Amino acid sequence: MQPASTPEPPYYAVIFTSLRTEIDEGYGDMASRMIDLASEQPDFLGVESARGADGLGITVSYWASEEAIANWRAQAEHRVAQAHGRGKWYEQFITRVAKVERVRHFGR
Amino acid sequence: MQPASTPEPPYYAVIFTSLRTEIDEGYGDMASRMIDLASEQPDFLGVESARGADGLGITVSYWASEEAIANWRAQAEHRVAQAHGRGKWYEQFITRVAKVERVRHFGR
Repeated sequence: MQPASTPEPPYYAVIFTSLRTEIDEGYGDMASRMIDLASEQPDFLGVESARGADGLGITVSYWASEEAIANWRAQAEHRVAQAHGRGKWYEQFITRVAKVERVRHFGR
Repeated sequence: MQPASTPEPPYYAVIFTSLRTEIDEGYGDMASRMIDLASEQPDFLGVESARGADGLGITVSYWASEEAIANWRAQAEHRVAQAHGRGKWYEQFITRVAKVERVRHFGR
């Protein structure tokens, strides 16, 4: 996965930080399916995701509007995944919605 | 590392997404030193960091004010690390400054 190519700000970021349980059943398929499904939603701008060796996971998705975030949160298949997440996959998570105001890039 | 305990919003997030070069010299020491040093700055609220097996790294630091972010960006030892980052450690990075507006928590 590459850093997400996003347009000029302002736009919105959803920062999802999580620790997993030890229950792996179905998790990998769900995680990749949710990235594919998010990518198909209106006003989706990009996504970045990493889980470190210590278990902390960070997924940041970018959206053109707050309405797009509300629609994604309410999307039917995503709601099922959220319920499984609370039921078995996640020990803890924090979701932060933020408005991106400034961006700097570096590349070789 | 745990998800960061932060106060009620609003506050600010700096989302730093990166791909590394193959040059490891000094990188690990710098990365842990910068997390320690950031944690000592005024109005620092917390930090979360993960680098996945595919190489994408995401570090999100949280700050009480935009002034705190500007001060951290200008901090002398941090500026040296930034220069080394551009010079050898990072292939590519994006820094996004965002205002956190809403937060939801889940925990067992």
